Amino acid sequence: MRDEEREVFENRARRSSKNSPRSEFDFINSIRQKALRHRESFNSSPGTRRSSLLHGIGDDAAVFEQRGGFDTVMTADLLVEDVDFRLSTTPPRLLGHKALAVSLSDIAAMGARPRFALLSVGVPRSVWRSGFLDEFYEGFFALAHRYHVELIGGDVSRTPERVLIDSIVIGDVSHGSAVTRAGARPGDHIFVTGNLGGAHAGLSLLENEIRRAPVGRRIIERLVSRHRRPEPRVSWGAMLGEEGLATAMIDLSDGLSSDLAHLCHESKVGARIDAARIPVDPLVEHLADKLRLNPLEAALNGGEDFELLFTIHPRDLQRLPKRIGTVPATYIGDITDERDLILLRQGRRLRQLNPRGFMHFS
Amino acid sequence: MRDEEREVFENRARRSSKNSPRSEFDFINSIRQKALRHRESFNSSPGTRRSSLLHGIGDDAAVFEQRGGFDTVMTADLLVEDVDFRLSTTPPRLLGHKALAVSLSDIAAMGARPRFALLSVGVPRSVWRSGFLDEFYEGFFALAHRYHVELIGGDVSRTPERVLIDSIVIGDVSHGSAVTRAGARPGDHIFVTGNLGGAHAGLSLLENEIRRAPVGRRIIERLVSRHRRPEPRVSWGAMLGEEGLATAMIDLSDGLSSDLAHLCHESKVGARIDAARIPVDPLVEHLADKLRLNPLEAALNGGEDFELLFTIHPRDLQRLPKRIGTVPATYIGDITDERDLILLRQGRRLRQLNPRGFMHFS
Repeated sequence: MRDEEREVFENRARRSSKNSPRSEFDFINSIRQKALRHRESFNSSPGTRRSSLLHGIGDDAAVFEQRGGFDTVMTADLLVEDVDFRLSTTPPRLLGHKALAVSLSDIAAMGARPRFALLSVGVPRSVWRSGFLDEFYEGFFALAHRYHVELIGGDVSRTPERVLIDSIVIGDVSHGSAVTRAGARPGDHIFVTGNLGGAHAGLSLLENEIRRAPVGRRIIERLVSRHRRPEPRVSWGAMLGEEGLATAMIDLSDGLSSDLAHLCHESKVGARIDAARIPVDPLVEHLADKLRLNPLEAALNGGEDFELLFTIHPRDLQRLPKRIGTVPATYIGDITDERDLILLRQGRRLRQLNPRGFMHFS
Repeated sequence: MRDEEREVFENRARRSSKNSPRSEFDFINSIRQKALRHRESFNSSPGTRRSSLLHGIGDDAAVFEQRGGFDTVMTADLLVEDVDFRLSTTPPRLLGHKALAVSLSDIAAMGARPRFALLSVGVPRSVWRSGFLDEFYEGFFALAHRYHVELIGGDVSRTPERVLIDSIVIGDVSHGSAVTRAGARPGDHIFVTGNLGGAHAGLSLLENEIRRAPVGRRIIERLVSRHRRPEPRVSWGAMLGEEGLATAMIDLSDGLSSDLAHLCHESKVGARIDAARIPVDPLVEHLADKLRLNPLEAALNGGEDFELLFTIHPRDLQRLPKRIGTVPATYIGDITDERDLILLRQGRRLRQLNPRGFMHFS
């Protein structure tokens, strides 16, 4: 910071009370500096597309250049303390990770590549004075860095109590290549990335059974991490969009039963999936008795796995990679023409699957 | 709604308890229908640019087309109950108006034209069950309609208590024409649209003096409306950007003293303004004694007038319209080279003006 600038900030700091370690201006300025440093490291890394950002944090609004032949993809995800997370069980670093991860997952589910993010954050005075926000932004920037996402704006407000976060992510995709929920056709095959049920098991462990569960600490940590530190399937999503492979796609945030129902409803189709093919998290399978969980139920109805569910035309099957990095995609069933009817085959039984995933208001 | 669709929604409604008038799906679907109706009426109105929206509400993310030669401008504004507004004094319709207005004001302050909006809304169960959200969105859509802004996404969450809103607006501007806070140069003239201090007087009336103030009801309503129903200067902002007239711009949300300080700091300049030229709201001037307000202080330090403060090179003065519609722009002083020094001339006195506007954390 140059001397003149320092003087201005010190001048401003004088207005702060002794109890308040920094003013809003200082805080926003520190985030702006962090965003600038990240930007510089992206732009100097080889093989990265030059950023189209023109004006980031520090003005009334952020500005980036539009490029003909591309579409912009935008999502916002609101996280509220004691509804979507608990501070007692969520370290701020992981909350910063998760806030960005859920929005990156939405961008991936459109077949797009994430570019920019805005964060609106509300915190009570006590949290403002703690190290919470520094750690929160550390977790955010660590994930942003991996996918070359730039923080370009947002808002900061006080709340009477409770932390709230609105995470906004902007991505892009070649014009007309966005993958909606509405494109699945009868005969398409249904795939899911990674495996399911781990986030639900992790949440159960966190919420009420972590002391009682007769399970080793490392296994607990792995499952809890599925809930607290979800990995958005950024590469899978962008690949499926770029290659035009997926006919429809959604991310598994509410749960497979609910999200498959959304996809079928928007596509005006039905689906038939096979219980034996659903890739249940092996830890959940292995520990089902000890955790008192039905692994198939956890995989079908547990939310927040943030895997991608997509459909693909049979002629494109051969072009579909088996995995990207360590993350496989698994065939679980087919799209049918029986609108909104979702059938689950379990051995010889065929039952109708009703959505039982998460809703805020029901 | 077709019969098959109705069946699906009724099926879903069965999951709702008797106390809950509608599910999250029904709600989001109703907003989606409203957005579609607004979209149709925009697209059929003559002289409107065709919308570049490809996919709006109802998928993982919204998608719109990028156009070469334009820049995208984005802002987010977080409003928290009991910090930024009180439900007891803010009817939901006006809150819907204000949530959008503050973001439109940011877009205008960049010289851009608003195109799309996302709304993230968190409400407690009791509010969800009331008519609050319907009225809130009515106020939002009424303002959106005036400026042909389309609602394309957002999020809905439950909160333990208190309403919160994150209003996100996306605009566009010809490539390179966005007006930042950083472009003011010594010798530029400083202008402000409309008049100042009314929102502050309106807030005072609302907060503690409305019964005691010996002022007529219509005057109270006009001042209170300046606070509760701000008019974003959309046409002024877009004109200044399109014509390349403003060298720097900011909207008056924190207060003239603070916002002029922001503009000067980013531009690395100072300013000298004349108290006699500041366009104080005539109602505030007229009722100063009765309201126990210093009208100049209200104009300098009262926030939320949402007028535009901009600078202009002397050679461009003749191109500047005196007013747009009924809203004038008033010359109040000049930019100087004394970095971060803001001087206020009051008669023969010249005093340093320190920022005293609103901060969430100080």
